[in-house]
Amino acid sequence: MKTYARRITVHLLAVALTASAQASAQTDPLPSWNDGPAKQAIIKFVQTTTDQSNPKFVPPAERIATFDQDGTLWVEKPMYTQVIYCLERVPAVVKAKPELAKVEPFKTVLSGNREAMAKLSKEDLVKILAATLTGMSVDDFEAEAKKWLDSQKDPRWKRPNTELTYLPMQEVLKYLRANGYKTYIVTGGGQDFVRVYADAVYGIPPEQVVGTVGATKYGYDKAGKPFLLKEPKLLLNDDNAGKPEGIHLMIGRRPRAAFGNSVGDQQMIEYTTAGEGERLAMLVLHDDAQREYAYGPAKGLPNSKVGTFTQALYDEATKNGWTVISMKSDWKRIFSFEP
Amino acid sequence: MKTYARRITVHLLAVALTASAQASAQTDPLPSWNDGPAKQAIIKFVQTTTDQSNPKFVPPAERIATFDQDGTLWVEKPMYTQVIYCLERVPAVVKAKPELAKVEPFKTVLSGNREAMAKLSKEDLVKILAATLTGMSVDDFEAEAKKWLDSQKDPRWKRPNTELTYLPMQEVLKYLRANGYKTYIVTGGGQDFVRVYADAVYGIPPEQVVGTVGATKYGYDKAGKPFLLKEPKLLLNDDNAGKPEGIHLMIGRRPRAAFGNSVGDQQMIEYTTAGEGERLAMLVLHDDAQREYAYGPAKGLPNSKVGTFTQALYDEATKNGWTVISMKSDWKRIFSFEP
Repeated sequence: MKTYARRITVHLLAVALTASAQASAQTDPLPSWNDGPAKQAIIKFVQTTTDQSNPKFVPPAERIATFDQDGTLWVEKPMYTQVIYCLERVPAVVKAKPELAKVEPFKTVLSGNREAMAKLSKEDLVKILAATLTGMSVDDFEAEAKKWLDSQKDPRWKRPNTELTYLPMQEVLKYLRANGYKTYIVTGGGQDFVRVYADAVYGIPPEQVVGTVGATKYGYDKAGKPFLLKEPKLLLNDDNAGKPEGIHLMIGRRPRAAFGNSVGDQQMIEYTTAGEGERLAMLVLHDDAQREYAYGPAKGLPNSKVGTFTQALYDEATKNGWTVISMKSDWKRIFSFEP
Repeated sequence: MKTYARRITVHLLAVALTASAQASAQTDPLPSWNDGPAKQAIIKFVQTTTDQSNPKFVPPAERIATFDQDGTLWVEKPMYTQVIYCLERVPAVVKAKPELAKVEPFKTVLSGNREAMAKLSKEDLVKILAATLTGMSVDDFEAEAKKWLDSQKDPRWKRPNTELTYLPMQEVLKYLRANGYKTYIVTGGGQDFVRVYADAVYGIPPEQVVGTVGATKYGYDKAGKPFLLKEPKLLLNDDNAGKPEGIHLMIGRRPRAAFGNSVGDQQMIEYTTAGEGERLAMLVLHDDAQREYAYGPAKGLPNSKVGTFTQALYDEATKNGWTVISMKSDWKRIFSFEP
């Protein structure tokens, strides 16, 4: 018995020592990042805010991190995924309402003329979004969007858009969550649309998706079963100044960390960094035409209509000490499916 | 060494056995509830939905429980706490805008005539809410509300309203959370107001408070610091049909359990129970004039304007198998400060 007891004790001690050694070994939480100021900023932020002996320690409940989606967590070119969805939904909408076939902008979309479609005005796009995203129940919308997402493929990578997420950002999401941060998507895209896949794609549950959102109307179907109808009434345009407004509406706390890639994210980052204590502000710069796209203004890159990382934003970032992430030099790997 | 090792081993075994004994002893999670159908319904629901071998098992991510506040989690008589706040804020508002002193409904509120105040119309109340809850920054509002809550006292119990929560419901909140449920407040009250104290009072963080909510407007103060201005523009009236609409807006999932006490909660409960699988629907009936108030319709009790538990709702509950909680017979203790 004594020998047996001793053996158990030695075993228990060995287990304890191994666990402690593993913890102190500190395996790299961001293996797809090259060493540099961006990676260092993330690690320093997490270490500082989770170290109880540090005066800049942040209590777990206040650990909120917000992420723009298009261009920050996944590819936004050649078009936002949701815009492609809406354009491809037009034939089904016209089938249900044939009178739309002769009306703009539906006529142009049905023509399939990509050049003409690229010239559609913002007002035209709003009409298309309203027609394709509202007028059905929340449940029907979810089922439709899910079906489309499973079938759709990006023209360049020949993969579903849901696979075109940036591996380095997926690592940041996981690293923050492992350190007690609640991760939120704060997107100009549709809240209901992003909720359909956010959990599967990013590990972000529906209640942590903040997006552009319309009203719903509660009612009953013929069998008396309640349902929520998606209405063409905008509650919040979650872009630019709408992002801090959406954060207050949906979260009610100022984030500690914010990630974006365009002028639409500027106010979210300003709001985040205006709070006291340690804050992290990061902007993804698309400067890698070979592995992804290059459309930032800096370093002489051509500007772009979508996801505008303008020179003014770049100057603002420099002035305020926001960290610019260079896809080209900061990211060792961009996609999980590439070596 | 051998004896020491043996002592440690025996100690470890003892610790393990004690822990296991404690776990299987199943201490009562709802000690302030009398045994009866209400208590049994809650325990059965939790056991069923958290037992992996049960076909009605609910995955942790889908465990959402929603609670009305006024009359369900805390006392709503003689007036909603927030209405008292708004009425008491009127003098400060008039001080800032003296021209309001001669205008209704502010004139009546300033008169202090309680009978006249009780007769104010819904439109008058909306004017008072708009004047007292908007036009300031989100941060200023929070600071003001916090100050008032710390100073204010209920006339009957001579305690802050934040202490007038129902102990049995606090136990339900904790019991559900201990079993992986995310608990939400879904209130007709102001989202920003309830967020000020929900964490301290119920252990519910700001991001899990869904309420009546107005727009905010992002801007900058003279020093260039960003802030959010509370605007007199309603985004969602989170009552009646607004409750399921608010749940979709803020949570994006159908709750598994819903608790209310009035016709304002009926649609939330309908929506909750219309989902598949195990659901829990409960209504608190105020039938205890001695220990709290009695204003339910059933059992010949007088009806009331506030927190209307109408006969129609009672019949609906009976028809649909929603559990009615009788304060008088189901609750052993009502408040934590009473024996």
